[in-house]
Amino acid sequence: MKLVRYGEKGGEKPGVLDANGAIRDLSGVIGDISSETLSPELLARLSGLDPETLPLVDGSPRYGAPVGKIGKFICVGLNYADHAAETGKAPPPEPVLFAKATTAVCGPNDDVEIPRGSDRTDWEVELGIVIGSRAKYVSEDDALSHVAGYVLVNDVSEREFQSERAGQWIKGKSHDTFGPTGPWLVTPEEFEDIQNIDLWLDVDGERRQTGNTRTMIFSVKHLVSYISQFMTLEPGDVISTGTPPGVGLGMKPPTFLKEGQIVTLGAAGLGEQRQKMVQA
Amino acid sequence: MKLVRYGEKGGEKPGVLDANGAIRDLSGVIGDISSETLSPELLARLSGLDPETLPLVDGSPRYGAPVGKIGKFICVGLNYADHAAETGKAPPPEPVLFAKATTAVCGPNDDVEIPRGSDRTDWEVELGIVIGSRAKYVSEDDALSHVAGYVLVNDVSEREFQSERAGQWIKGKSHDTFGPTGPWLVTPEEFEDIQNIDLWLDVDGERRQTGNTRTMIFSVKHLVSYISQFMTLEPGDVISTGTPPGVGLGMKPPTFLKEGQIVTLGAAGLGEQRQKMVQA
Repeated sequence: MKLVRYGEKGGEKPGVLDANGAIRDLSGVIGDISSETLSPELLARLSGLDPETLPLVDGSPRYGAPVGKIGKFICVGLNYADHAAETGKAPPPEPVLFAKATTAVCGPNDDVEIPRGSDRTDWEVELGIVIGSRAKYVSEDDALSHVAGYVLVNDVSEREFQSERAGQWIKGKSHDTFGPTGPWLVTPEEFEDIQNIDLWLDVDGERRQTGNTRTMIFSVKHLVSYISQFMTLEPGDVISTGTPPGVGLGMKPPTFLKEGQIVTLGAAGLGEQRQKMVQA
Repeated sequence: MKLVRYGEKGGEKPGVLDANGAIRDLSGVIGDISSETLSPELLARLSGLDPETLPLVDGSPRYGAPVGKIGKFICVGLNYADHAAETGKAPPPEPVLFAKATTAVCGPNDDVEIPRGSDRTDWEVELGIVIGSRAKYVSEDDALSHVAGYVLVNDVSEREFQSERAGQWIKGKSHDTFGPTGPWLVTPEEFEDIQNIDLWLDVDGERRQTGNTRTMIFSVKHLVSYISQFMTLEPGDVISTGTPPGVGLGMKPPTFLKEGQIVTLGAAGLGEQRQKMVQA
């Protein structure tokens, strides 16, 4: 099942994709797909519906992030061994965690702002985990039962703000529009193996990142369990699981985003994103 | 004006203190005091009410955090020169920022959990800023116009999780109950000078922290302006502005909290908190 939120920013409606990939309106079933409504019961109810019986949405509306009112956006740093290497850092002995301000979340195809004074705005294609039920001190064996589904994330990052402004990384991860999320919230049964998902990212049509979740240092189930030892995860929380190699910071010479450039990215089964870079 | 939220956890009602310090019920005026309702207009409307005309709340109900559905909880590190010194660090050249998971927020007198496996749970009395209107790229001169008021915060911290678990600080700041907030949201007109507020904290009745906001390295208005360069602040967001000297990490030998201990803390004009330490 592929859930979406579509329509103008701040006024998104819930929807589900039908067998043809068209959006069917869920407004008659649920007010929104958000931290306030996500639950195993909601997902069971929605998966029991026949999309063909729901109103077809006309045209090509904007996609919003497929979860509203995200409570926490937790990111994992240096979670691919080859990405850690390109940044010049050793693979961490346990997951590195940081937060992205939830105000940074935007739709998958919204314009992305280059912050004022930035000349090191960078890209990071990532697999995002959406939490579906409260998780505190959960085991690895139990972790996946707390996952509502998966989303594509571009963990946009300003490298000077992240690392050279007296700390901590949140400074470089939180500008408005630095969290394109979606287009779809894809429920787990659609994936044969979440640790075998291809990821890619292009800038102006040139391939920059190519990766697969099989080279993650810490797996999805390990991350959910691990993070739940430090904080309680709640429905609608998002965990972005780190980026494979190919970020601008790792290029020789380092190369960053400029106004007018187009970033496209995708992951197998999770859809694609397209962002135009604009000046804040 | 001193705003409160009172009642059982998750079912708090809004209230305001009258001239005698008793709680008057605001339920007939507003559903909740939260990120969804805070605005300059709301504060103007509430300050125009005569509390004596509102229903008196009987008994001594529990206080919740005085703002519900906090969107972001941003903390400032090492913002008192003498506290930076006790941790062995140089004063930072610009504010150090990190996030506390919003799930850590609790009422001012709720029990505080010592996380499993923790033997370095520490205290930090702080002045918290509550944002009242959207702030993006605001100047220092304009910063205070975006402040709804101030709150007392205990930025409870697990020092091993914070600094010795492969990064970043959020790991040591985010356990459930690590963010006692309140009892009151106090609006700015009640303070002659927010940079001259006494702060104190006791453990089992012994004074541990004594400070005053005049020794902050970065002032309230600087912090609001500064943070708004990196992320957009929204109504109900909280900024905890750093702690004065006297944390357990700085004692010789370092001394941390144990099950059954009682932490009390306060700030001039902001009320007091009392927490019993319990094992998670």
